[in-house]
Amino acid sequence: MSEPLLHGFFRSGASYRVRIALGLKGIAYGNASYSLRDGAQRSPAYLALNPQGLVPALEIDGAVLTQSLAIIEYLDETHDGPRLLPTDPILRAHVRAAAQVIAIDIHPIQNLKVLGWVKALGGDESAWAARVIEEGFAAFDALIAPHAGRFCFGDTVTLADVCLVPQLVNARRFGAKDIPARLLAIEEACLALPAFDAARPENQPDAV
Amino acid sequence: MSEPLLHGFFRSGASYRVRIALGLKGIAYGNASYSLRDGAQRSPAYLALNPQGLVPALEIDGAVLTQSLAIIEYLDETHDGPRLLPTDPILRAHVRAAAQVIAIDIHPIQNLKVLGWVKALGGDESAWAARVIEEGFAAFDALIAPHAGRFCFGDTVTLADVCLVPQLVNARRFGAKDIPARLLAIEEACLALPAFDAARPENQPDAV
Repeated sequence: MSEPLLHGFFRSGASYRVRIALGLKGIAYGNASYSLRDGAQRSPAYLALNPQGLVPALEIDGAVLTQSLAIIEYLDETHDGPRLLPTDPILRAHVRAAAQVIAIDIHPIQNLKVLGWVKALGGDESAWAARVIEEGFAAFDALIAPHAGRFCFGDTVTLADVCLVPQLVNARRFGAKDIPARLLAIEEACLALPAFDAARPENQPDAV
Repeated sequence: MSEPLLHGFFRSGASYRVRIALGLKGIAYGNASYSLRDGAQRSPAYLALNPQGLVPALEIDGAVLTQSLAIIEYLDETHDGPRLLPTDPILRAHVRAAAQVIAIDIHPIQNLKVLGWVKALGGDESAWAARVIEEGFAAFDALIAPHAGRFCFGDTVTLADVCLVPQLVNARRFGAKDIPARLLAIEEACLALPAFDAARPENQPDAV
């Protein structure tokens, strides 16, 4: 079986999630980089791989997988290493819900495409993104409050942490205010782990 | 154990997904309705239940679960009835990815809150929503093409169908064009099933 190949971009938050998961699972992989600002992810060659024209996509185990959460759950179900979802069904649902607050209710509303549309309407892209992130983080913080320890859910890294850390990069880029202190403390604990540190945008081969 | 209680709204696409899943699993449940246009989901009583102020939330098995996909995976993991995710890990990833094209890349970008922001910028809400849906459906159709049968993945209902059918309601509401014929055929097959039919917005007690 050849080494998995991650089609991504150093600055893509969804690619960052998958890089963290691959690192936590101890899976060596190659990188193919697509500059999103140049539209490289819309090239015919990449569209043949992922008709959605979005990164990331992961070539692994003879398949091309898309959508970062689906990829990460696949890795969690099929590869050794720390479990990113707890075994208790109720707790699994809470972890997935927290991850989805970020992956569904924050990230897609502040991605490059949507911000381009906001700009075309004469809107302030950063203000739009900051508002989405501030409202989303307030909800995320309230949802994890009963569960949080060193990480979002106790003292074990979960899918919620894997989504939180990349979103904090975007929060800073867009000048989001009032980031809950709990989230910053969790970020610090995560980035102290080699898998998170190695996955940081600035540590990627395609970083500019 | 008391009967599960679904906090939702007849017109909410995410609530519709959960209603379908509850029906497919044969789970009887009660309804609590929140008129989204009136902001009922932002009432202090509901925020105490779900700090995100979004429907649906499901009270079940002594917990309050939020986020429709997390709720549905919980039901799939813990309750009898047809499996909404295949057992093969690669296929599970493809089904989740298709569901996420709708739940991540379409639905949140055309929800009531975001459309309100678009309107405030002087944008055309329906044109914005239609564009999101048309682009998303084109990608969804391409992703399921290698797998589709009577339903999105072969001849068995999956999470992808549970997400598709409610999104088609929004597609029509916003005047989306060029809906792939395959998706309309799958919709027809789904709505012939009692669980889908019973979950339709117009068949809810709070429908107006």
